[in-house]
Amino acid sequence: MPDCLFCKIVHREIPADIVCESEHALAFRDISPVAPTHVLVIPKKHIATANDISPEDKDVIGELYLLAQKVIEIEGLISSGHRLVMNVGAGGGQSVFHIHLHVIGGRSLSWPPG
Amino acid sequence: MPDCLFCKIVHREIPADIVCESEHALAFRDISPVAPTHVLVIPKKHIATANDISPEDKDVIGELYLLAQKVIEIEGLISSGHRLVMNVGAGGGQSVFHIHLHVIGGRSLSWPPG
Repeated sequence: MPDCLFCKIVHREIPADIVCESEHALAFRDISPVAPTHVLVIPKKHIATANDISPEDKDVIGELYLLAQKVIEIEGLISSGHRLVMNVGAGGGQSVFHIHLHVIGGRSLSWPPG
Repeated sequence: MPDCLFCKIVHREIPADIVCESEHALAFRDISPVAPTHVLVIPKKHIATANDISPEDKDVIGELYLLAQKVIEIEGLISSGHRLVMNVGAGGGQSVFHIHLHVIGGRSLSWPPG
């Protein structure tokens, strides 16, 4: 999507603090972190919201979770616990309409999650 | 897993307020809801934490998101937005060690998510 901020990061047209990547997913640091570790894991394919995930995308959604594992390993957070969050729609707090999994860790996390 | 609460729900050995299900996933209401809609979507297969997801599980993780879409449709929340949350490890707020995606909606959601 030509006007999508995250597609531009995927295509290296906009800089980002990239943590790691896999064939179909990319992980980079959130520019407004809410915790010592706050990384976004996105599919390289443009999917606007979680409501737009189609059956053919199942694999890439799983790949987001595998790449999140790698982020947690890199950050040294395997044993400390973390939270994975996806906001859906403006009412859910989604600000960029290219799905992204927030990987949040490195501090205590309260409940409820917002 | 014989001692897993959520495996028992999958096998209908413990009652739960089931919302919908698919071949490999099940959705039921959280017994301690933090929002008007608070549903847990789990894989029927036992996976302890998000750190234990293996490459062969990619598809089932995607299926959790497809079933979450169905929950949102049933709850009439497609246009209002919602949040999908997975706690990982005790430090991340995970209390049952069978992965579950919290589908939270029906009220405004603040940031950060805990």
